[in-house]
Amino acid sequence: MPNPTAAMLVIGDEILSGRTRDANMHHLAGQLTEKGIDLKEVRVVSDDRDAIIAAVQALSTGYEHVFTSGGIGPTHDDITADCVAAAFGDGIDVRADADKLLGDYYAENGRDYNAARKRMARIPDSATLIENPVSIAPGFTLKNVNVMAGVPSVFKAMVASVLAPMGGGAPLLSVSVRIDRGEGDIAGPLGELDAQFPDISIGSYPFQENGRFGANIVLRHSDEALLDEAKTALEALFA
Amino acid sequence: MPNPTAAMLVIGDEILSGRTRDANMHHLAGQLTEKGIDLKEVRVVSDDRDAIIAAVQALSTGYEHVFTSGGIGPTHDDITADCVAAAFGDGIDVRADADKLLGDYYAENGRDYNAARKRMARIPDSATLIENPVSIAPGFTLKNVNVMAGVPSVFKAMVASVLAPMGGGAPLLSVSVRIDRGEGDIAGPLGELDAQFPDISIGSYPFQENGRFGANIVLRHSDEALLDEAKTALEALFA
Repeated sequence: MPNPTAAMLVIGDEILSGRTRDANMHHLAGQLTEKGIDLKEVRVVSDDRDAIIAAVQALSTGYEHVFTSGGIGPTHDDITADCVAAAFGDGIDVRADADKLLGDYYAENGRDYNAARKRMARIPDSATLIENPVSIAPGFTLKNVNVMAGVPSVFKAMVASVLAPMGGGAPLLSVSVRIDRGEGDIAGPLGELDAQFPDISIGSYPFQENGRFGANIVLRHSDEALLDEAKTALEALFA
Repeated sequence: MPNPTAAMLVIGDEILSGRTRDANMHHLAGQLTEKGIDLKEVRVVSDDRDAIIAAVQALSTGYEHVFTSGGIGPTHDDITADCVAAAFGDGIDVRADADKLLGDYYAENGRDYNAARKRMARIPDSATLIENPVSIAPGFTLKNVNVMAGVPSVFKAMVASVLAPMGGGAPLLSVSVRIDRGEGDIAGPLGELDAQFPDISIGSYPFQENGRFGANIVLRHSDEALLDEAKTALEALFA
């Protein structure tokens, strides 16, 4: 059975302007690979209502799971929750369960639970909440879309909550072999290896080190014995 | 006149599996902002023919400029050039100009110009070459799509070649103000500032430092005087 498929949607002008370097994509990619879920596509869009709605609809239709990051804070540019509700024609308002979580939290901390913070309790009617152990304001899951915060520490905590109960396939294993030759010298033999092991994903990642060329060859498959066999064959090619 | 729009397409299984952390998106985003070109969307897809062709067609139609990274080396998984040609119904084969560049380069360096390396001279019939001062194998521009290497040093060099003659709008300027309060305390006044300066893009980027909350407020516009005015108003709000 093939692995479940997934896509990620990163929302935020700060990534597209180059001000912030996104860290969440790399984290999610690693977590999904461990879980045996295949991340097939990532999109980054700006804080724009039409762009977010169109991307949510396209990715939700195309993949089994969608993970979003960004745009669920208290400020005027945080429009993700409303856009995801609109993408599915769901209603959205301050919801009692999220409102209580936030109200209790700010009361305990002696901080003002004002109108801006109350915005973070806006949750689509049909969604289930995603726990946020870092700063309480919850994410949510609506249909197959998991909506999470952009702040990396919060995003990581939410990913852990969401992935724990989720079924995956066989985790993809990888082995890496470093070859100290130019990629152009490696490519021919590598093509033959690819024909010999059609089920194994073979990637070649070139580097330059002290003016010399080399490449890391990465073999990926869920079957460890098959991977070992291919690795031995690869090493024999360049012995 | 609004700034020209752009999209980026990152091609590579190694990014989606979490093995490699992409560096090219952040670089391109910064360069485009300096140039006054608005990066509106980024997509990351795997080394899959259908996925690459569909993304090239969608982005080429939706934006004025498209920049791709990855998949133009000598190995069997480097299929970007063929996919971009197919996306536009253009022919592709080893082309004399690229073939000469590569042949001369390998002859000078006393290295074998073999069949795998010759793959890097496969250029669509209607494309113009993009110079690669780092490792010679050229990128190319076909219609509004600029096809570049994934290796960060080569990508950077190609971006510089491509952007130099390209017309941009007024560069987007930004000023950042650090506010040492929780985003929930900032959001209300910030909404009023947003209403007062509708043309200025106002972003709020929260952080946590030694257990305390704060946010960097970033104002963006091409008009320096207007930015200064907004910055003064912002500082007055939280004085």
